[in-house]
Amino acid sequence: MFEQVQAAAARLQGIAHRTPVITSRTLDDQCGAEVLLKCENFQRVGAFKFRGAFNVISQLSDAEKARGVITYSSGNHAQAVALACRMSGARAVVVMPDDAPAIKRAATEGYGAQVISYDPDHQDRREIAERLAAEHGYTIVPPYDHPGIVAGQGTAALELCQDAGPLDALLVPCGGGGLLSGSAIAAKGMSPACRVIGIEPELADDATRSFRTKTLHTVHHPPTIADGTRTPSLGVVTFPLVLQYVDDMQTVSEAAIIEAVRFLFFRAKLVVEPSGALGVAALISGAVKINGRVGVILSGGNIDAATMIQILQG
Amino acid sequence: MFEQVQAAAARLQGIAHRTPVITSRTLDDQCGAEVLLKCENFQRVGAFKFRGAFNVISQLSDAEKARGVITYSSGNHAQAVALACRMSGARAVVVMPDDAPAIKRAATEGYGAQVISYDPDHQDRREIAERLAAEHGYTIVPPYDHPGIVAGQGTAALELCQDAGPLDALLVPCGGGGLLSGSAIAAKGMSPACRVIGIEPELADDATRSFRTKTLHTVHHPPTIADGTRTPSLGVVTFPLVLQYVDDMQTVSEAAIIEAVRFLFFRAKLVVEPSGALGVAALISGAVKINGRVGVILSGGNIDAATMIQILQG
Repeated sequence: MFEQVQAAAARLQGIAHRTPVITSRTLDDQCGAEVLLKCENFQRVGAFKFRGAFNVISQLSDAEKARGVITYSSGNHAQAVALACRMSGARAVVVMPDDAPAIKRAATEGYGAQVISYDPDHQDRREIAERLAAEHGYTIVPPYDHPGIVAGQGTAALELCQDAGPLDALLVPCGGGGLLSGSAIAAKGMSPACRVIGIEPELADDATRSFRTKTLHTVHHPPTIADGTRTPSLGVVTFPLVLQYVDDMQTVSEAAIIEAVRFLFFRAKLVVEPSGALGVAALISGAVKINGRVGVILSGGNIDAATMIQILQG
Repeated sequence: MFEQVQAAAARLQGIAHRTPVITSRTLDDQCGAEVLLKCENFQRVGAFKFRGAFNVISQLSDAEKARGVITYSSGNHAQAVALACRMSGARAVVVMPDDAPAIKRAATEGYGAQVISYDPDHQDRREIAERLAAEHGYTIVPPYDHPGIVAGQGTAALELCQDAGPLDALLVPCGGGGLLSGSAIAAKGMSPACRVIGIEPELADDATRSFRTKTLHTVHHPPTIADGTRTPSLGVVTFPLVLQYVDDMQTVSEAAIIEAVRFLFFRAKLVVEPSGALGVAALISGAVKINGRVGVILSGGNIDAATMIQILQG
């Protein structure tokens, strides 16, 4: 699998941003470690999701690109697929709930994708995508449960290890496990001694329970502020990879997530969405204690004004 | 003067952060240029001010450090002097208005400085500092009107030119002119063809009028959101340097400043204070039109929650 991450990195060279690694003495002092923040909030479309989407879509044949790509997402993956399709010359179709924020729909359409609405109370987004794919010959690019997505998402951790040198630990947010498993594969490939820890909200602790029990657990519609982690469970591709490559999972409270977003805003001057701040939440709340050099993936920066105002009023 | 900037850079090596240069395709598309953002919001104490303060204070003799340093500021310079003193083993005294935000006073005291309050309606901060300096033998480190401060502030533009290569233009916020004149000296020293433009709020356009008329103009207590530019005028050191090294001055509206802070938040994922966003305001409002490669100094990121909420509610 490490070779697939390396191959993805070659495909993304000059296409994805090589995002900077930023440090904060205040953060180091506060958690007694040397913390290296990999700023995927600066990635194209504002999140790591572009890496996986481009890795998969750029490998499609011309015929597949002409028939089109379909995905289901109301979040960062939708815009990532739309942009990767535009850059690859592929047609893009995105299945999005009819109550998705207008700004997200507009952004996805702005990249040239066709948006198909559905009623999330009565319809299943994946079924719709599969039916349309069968009808029109679209290629499905799922949000996380795909080896090419995993390999693409792993390139952020690969760059971090290349730029920052050997790490004692790496903290990675976990939703569906695409970023986490890809990051773990990359980190272990670069430095096998690096301890990889996935971080989840307490309210959406399906992956933590799945990891501990080695049985897939599910949490539907968890009311966490970290909207990127509201996926119900790990996938058939990502669950075995998480079990194989990840060393531990930890959860953090909603209060810790909010404090981490505030800390990153006021002290690090970084705009990071709640899901993206999970690693910092684990460090400043003490949920994870590490001595030494700790990499943290700040996975994205797409936060709307209302959520940020709520957090600033905290 | 360029040699003084280079000497300051050597003093700051390994002490100040070498802040990253960040790009945004959205910004490039919007203003038809290649924009290179020098992120001094990531600098120690959250603003470029640390560069000048450390450059001056680190050159003091042991006897001067033991007697102490005094300055007058309620903003970023106060914390910069306090930190530079702590790092240099110098005693620090800061004269601050008695209505300064408690958080700023606490931050300055947190770096070990002694804070002396005054009543800004009835007392002059500079007179107080000069009287105390005469009484106690303190060395005065003013916020901008000092050759060592100018040289230190110029190191940000020096790094930008080194890291980004030749620039067609450089946009720099202007308050008292320390950052602007230092940046102009550095940019002209690195690439004489680079056009250096100072940016001010329309409401605080003293430097623009001074530049155009070659006579010093003053604006007292301008009601601009860009609090770092509320200094009444250029100084006796900085005014001649601005006339000699700067190519042009432009002003931007309050609405443009607010739009720039929002743009940097939502699109670039950067927390930038209103004064720090002046260059981006000039570009996205069209006040400055440049084809080619444009450097922009994002001078700081110290914005309080209330101001950010006001801007996000926009």
